[in-house]
Amino acid sequence: MAKGMTMTFTVAELAKALGGTLWGDGSLVVAGAAEPDEAGADHIAIATAAKYAEKLRPGGIALLAEGMNPETHGLLAAILLKRPRLALAGLTRRLDPAPEPAPGIHPMTVIDDSAVIGEGAAIGPFVTIGARVRIGARARIASHVSIGDRSVIGDDALIHAGARIAHDVIIGDRFILHPNASIRRTGFPLSRPNLRGSRKSAQSLGLRGDIKAQHWTRIHSLGGVEIGDDVEVGALAGIDRGTIRATRIGRGTKIDNQVQIGHNVILGEDCMLCGQAGVAGSTRIGNRVVLGGKVGVSDNIFVGDDVIAGGGTEIYTNVPAGRVILGSPAVKMETHVEIQKGIRRLPRLYAQVAQLQETVKKMLDKGRPGRTRRRG
Amino acid sequence: MAKGMTMTFTVAELAKALGGTLWGDGSLVVAGAAEPDEAGADHIAIATAAKYAEKLRPGGIALLAEGMNPETHGLLAAILLKRPRLALAGLTRRLDPAPEPAPGIHPMTVIDDSAVIGEGAAIGPFVTIGARVRIGARARIASHVSIGDRSVIGDDALIHAGARIAHDVIIGDRFILHPNASIRRTGFPLSRPNLRGSRKSAQSLGLRGDIKAQHWTRIHSLGGVEIGDDVEVGALAGIDRGTIRATRIGRGTKIDNQVQIGHNVILGEDCMLCGQAGVAGSTRIGNRVVLGGKVGVSDNIFVGDDVIAGGGTEIYTNVPAGRVILGSPAVKMETHVEIQKGIRRLPRLYAQVAQLQETVKKMLDKGRPGRTRRRG
Amino acid sequence: MAKGMTMTFTVAELAKALGGTLWGDGSLVVAGAAEPDEAGADHIAIATAAKYAEKLRPGGIALLAEGMNPETHGLLAAILLKRPRLALAGLTRRLDPAPEPAPGIHPMTVIDDSAVIGEGAAIGPFVTIGARVRIGARARIASHVSIGDRSVIGDDALIHAGARIAHDVIIGDRFILHPNASIRRTGFPLSRPNLRGSRKSAQSLGLRGDIKAQHWTRIHSLGGVEIGDDVEVGALAGIDRGTIRATRIGRGTKIDNQVQIGHNVILGEDCMLCGQAGVAGSTRIGNRVVLGGKVGVSDNIFVGDDVIAGGGTEIYTNVPAGRVILGSPAVKMETHVEIQKGIRRLPRLYAQVAQLQETVKKMLDKGRPGRTRRRG
Repeated sequence: MAKGMTMTFTVAELAKALGGTLWGDGSLVVAGAAEPDEAGADHIAIATAAKYAEKLRPGGIALLAEGMNPETHGLLAAILLKRPRLALAGLTRRLDPAPEPAPGIHPMTVIDDSAVIGEGAAIGPFVTIGARVRIGARARIASHVSIGDRSVIGDDALIHAGARIAHDVIIGDRFILHPNASIRRTGFPLSRPNLRGSRKSAQSLGLRGDIKAQHWTRIHSLGGVEIGDDVEVGALAGIDRGTIRATRIGRGTKIDNQVQIGHNVILGEDCMLCGQAGVAGSTRIGNRVVLGGKVGVSDNIFVGDDVIAGGGTEIYTNVPAGRVILGSPAVKMETHVEIQKGIRRLPRLYAQVAQLQETVKKMLDKGRPGRTRRRG
Repeated sequence: MAKGMTMTFTVAELAKALGGTLWGDGSLVVAGAAEPDEAGADHIAIATAAKYAEKLRPGGIALLAEGMNPETHGLLAAILLKRPRLALAGLTRRLDPAPEPAPGIHPMTVIDDSAVIGEGAAIGPFVTIGARVRIGARARIASHVSIGDRSVIGDDALIHAGARIAHDVIIGDRFILHPNASIRRTGFPLSRPNLRGSRKSAQSLGLRGDIKAQHWTRIHSLGGVEIGDDVEVGALAGIDRGTIRATRIGRGTKIDNQVQIGHNVILGEDCMLCGQAGVAGSTRIGNRVVLGGKVGVSDNIFVGDDVIAGGGTEIYTNVPAGRVILGSPAVKMETHVEIQKGIRRLPRLYAQVAQLQETVKKMLDKGRPGRTRRRG
Repeated sequence: MAKGMTMTFTVAELAKALGGTLWGDGSLVVAGAAEPDEAGADHIAIATAAKYAEKLRPGGIALLAEGMNPETHGLLAAILLKRPRLALAGLTRRLDPAPEPAPGIHPMTVIDDSAVIGEGAAIGPFVTIGARVRIGARARIASHVSIGDRSVIGDDALIHAGARIAHDVIIGDRFILHPNASIRRTGFPLSRPNLRGSRKSAQSLGLRGDIKAQHWTRIHSLGGVEIGDDVEVGALAGIDRGTIRATRIGRGTKIDNQVQIGHNVILGEDCMLCGQAGVAGSTRIGNRVVLGGKVGVSDNIFVGDDVIAGGGTEIYTNVPAGRVILGSPAVKMETHVEIQKGIRRLPRLYAQVAQLQETVKKMLDKGRPGRTRRRG
C-alpha cells in the first residue's frame, strides 16, 4: 500500500470484518466514514441511532443498528450491527489511513550502533535512538522522536512526532505515545508540597522552615519508568521517572492529553486518566480507576480499585475501592449532591433563620407585659 | 533586512503609522519600546497613563495619551494617541524583530515531492512536510515542525518550533501556532467520562460495568481538524481530531498555552480560551465566548454565544447565551457572589441558630410545670 | 567515562562523599541505589526509616539513619547518616548516569556562525542555535533543542530534548530545562480575562463590549525573559515573554512539569511551583513562595513572600506575605478548615432549623388567646 493512501473495502468485506449483517449491494466500495449529513458517495454513514438515521440520504451506504430498516431510507447498501459501539471501534481501525513513517529507517536519523531495532520497523526523519536501546518488531516511530540509552520498547509500538522517551524506560507491547509527550529523565526536587487540610498544612509549616534555612536540594532520579502492554499516553503528557524505584503504569491503562504523572507513582491496570488530570509523586492508584478531566490527586496517597472521580475532582486523602467521588475536596457522589443542594438553599436558610429570630424576639417581647403586670 | 535584525523607525514614521500626533523632533530613531524606568536612548517609553508618565526621564521619547503634556517631562519627542491600547498593538507589531526562519527552504528538511509550498516561504531546519500537503504564500515555519500528509494551510502562516500538525488538517489564512503545540492524529478511546452530578454519575455507573467487562476499546479518528482564518494556538496546546466528523475552530478564535480541545469539539468565532483551559469531547461552544484560565468544560454539552467564564470555572451543563459564569459547578456570577457570601457567613449562622435554640429552650422551660404551678 | 555508562563507587568513597559513617566492608562496589526489596547485589538499599529496614536482605549494602544497627540485618556494609534526606540528594546526584549528549558538538546541528559556545559543551543531534547566541561553559544540550537569536545562557546548563528557548532570553548559571518545555516568543493577545468576583466581572462586562465591537488585537511581545541562577523548569512547562518589559524568574526557583507562566510575570527567588500550576499575566510573586499542584493565580495581582498555597488553590486577589492558603477562592488555611466544617455540617443545620421552626410554631399556637380562653 502506498504511503499515506487511505484503505478501501467493499461493503461485504466490511460487514464480515465487523461481524455485521450485509443488506443490499455488497460490492460497493467504502473509502471512509462520516456522519449522515456529511457522507460523500464513497463514505459509509454512521447512523446507529434513530436521530442519526433521519438524516440519511437516499442512494447511500450506512452502518445501522440491528432492528433498523435500510429500505426506509432508500439506501443502496447497509451493515446491520448487534453492538454498534464496539463495531464502530473496528470500523474506524480499518478505515484509519496508514501511519505516516514510510517503511524502513530514514537516512536522516541518529541511531547508536548498539541499539537493536526489530524487523519491519518504520522510523521517520530526525529520530535519535541511544545506546543499547531495544525496540521490538513492527515499530512505527514518527519524525523528531528521541529515545534515551538502554530503554526497551515491545512489539508494535506507535510513537508519534516529537515524543520524548528518556533513558532506562521499559515499555510493553502495543505502546502508543502521542506527539510531544515526555517520559522524562528526572522527577521534581526534594519535596513536592501538595498540601491540604490540617495534617498536610502542618507538614507545610515544617516545610517553610526548610525553605528559609536552605535552597531546594535536588534528589536525582535513579529509578526508571516501567509501562505494561497496551498502554496509550496522550499528546503533551508527562511521566516522571522514579527517585529510587520505578514509576509504574499498569497494562491496558490509557492516559489522555496533558496528563501529569509524578515520580514513583504506581498506576494500576485498565485505568483511564482524562485530559489535564494530574497525579502527584509516590501516590498509588488501583486497577480500573477512572479520573475525569482535570482531576488532581495529592502525593503519597492511595486510590482503590474501581474508583471513579468526576471531572475537576480534587483528591487529597485515601479513597476506598469502588467509590464514585466528586468535588473539591473529593467526597462520595451522594454527599456531593447533598452539599451542593445545601449550598444552593443557603439564601433561603438565612431568610428562615432571620424570620425565626424575629418571631422569637416578638414572643419574648409579648411575654414581657405579663411580667410587668405580675410585678404591678 | 538582515536575519534577526530589529526594525528601526523615526518617531515621525511611527506617529504616522500609529495614527497619532507627533510632538517634538520627528527625526529621532526608535529601535524598541520599554516601560519608562527601563527605557534606553533609542527606546520609546510607553506612558499612556499618569502613573507611568511620572517615571519618564528628561531627554527621552514617549508614547502618551492625548491630553497629556510632553513638555512637563522634558521629552525630546512624543507621540500622542487617541486610543492608546489599540495603538500599542500597532506599535509592538512594528517593533517586533523579524521572524526567525531565514527566507527560503533550509536544506536540512524532509519535504515530500508532492507537497506544494507557496511563494515567499521561510522554512527552518529539521522540518518535515508530508505527501500532498499544500501551504499558502509567505509561510514562516520554524525549526523542528512536522506537518502530516494532505494537510492544507492558508497564506501567511507562522508555525513556531516543534509544533506538530498531523495529517488531514485544514487551516485558514494568517494561522499562528506556538512552540510544541500539537494538532494531533487521534482522539481519546471509546468514551471519555467527565462526569458530574446525578445524570452524569448514572452514566458513570453504567460505564463501570463496561470497565469490568472489557478493556478500553480504541475508536480511531477519521475526522480531521478544520481551523478558520486568523486563529492562534498557544504553546503546548493540544487539539484532537474528530472521530467521524472534523473538530472545528472558528475564524478569529485565540487559544492560549496548554489548552486542550477534545475530539469533535466545535468552537465558534472570535472566542478566547485562556491558559490551561480544557474542553472535553463533542462539546459545542458559540461565538465570542471567553474561557478564563484553567476553565474546564464537560463533554457533550453546549455553551452559548458571548458566554464569559471566569478563571477556574468548571462547566458541567449547558450554558445559555450571554451569561457570565463563575465557580464549580458554574453558576451565574450573581449567584456565585451570593453563594460565597453565604458560605463565609456560615460560622455566624451557626452561632445564631445555637442562640435561637438556647432561647427557645429557655422559653419552653419557662412554659413548663413551674408556670403551671404558679397558675395552680 | 564512556557515554551512557553508570558511575560506580566503593562504599567507602560514598560514605566519605555523603559525610556519613562507614560500617563493614568499605571496598564493596556500588553501581546504583534501590528500595530494600528491589536492591540487587551492586545496589545500596535506601533504608533510612525502620519500616524500610525491615525489608533489608542479608548480605547487602544499605544506607541507614544514625542510631540504626547494621548487624541486625546481616549486612556486609552500611553508611550511617545524620541527615538522611539531604544525604539522599547527594547520593542520587553521584549515582545518576552521565547526561546523554556525547561530548563535543554533533555534526547534524545548525548553529549560526555568530553564536558563541563555551568550552566543554556537549550538543546533541538536530539542535538549532540562532545568531549572536552566547552559551557558557560545560553546557549539555540534548537533541532537538532550539535556541533563538541573541539568547544568553550561563555556565553548566542542562537543556533536555525538544526544549524551546525563543530569542532574547537571558538565563543564569546551572539552568535545567526539561523535555519539550517552551520559553516562548510571544505572550497572549490584547487582554487575558481571568475574572472572578464583582470587580473583575465589571471588567469582563466591559470586555464583552470590546468583543462585539472588534476582533482580538494582538499586542506583540517586545520584552524578553530573564532567568536567574540555579533555576529549573519542568517538562512541557511554558513561560511567555513580556510585552514591554521582561518576564522574570528569580534565582533558585524550581518550576515543575506543565506549569504556565504568563507574560510580564515576576517570580521571586527560591520559589517552588508544582505540576500544572499557572500564573496569569503581569502578576508579581515574592520570594520562597510555594504553589502546590494545579494552583491558579489570577493576572495583575501580588502574592507576598513565603506564601504557601496548597494543591488546587485558586488565587484571585492579593495575598499578604507569610500566609498559608487553601481553597477556591483562596482563604487562610484556618478559614478554609472552618468553611469545610461548616459545609459538611449543613444537613444537620437544616434539620435543626426545621426543628426550631416546628417548635416555635407550636409555641405560637399554644400562646394564642383562643386556646387560653378555652382553658379558662
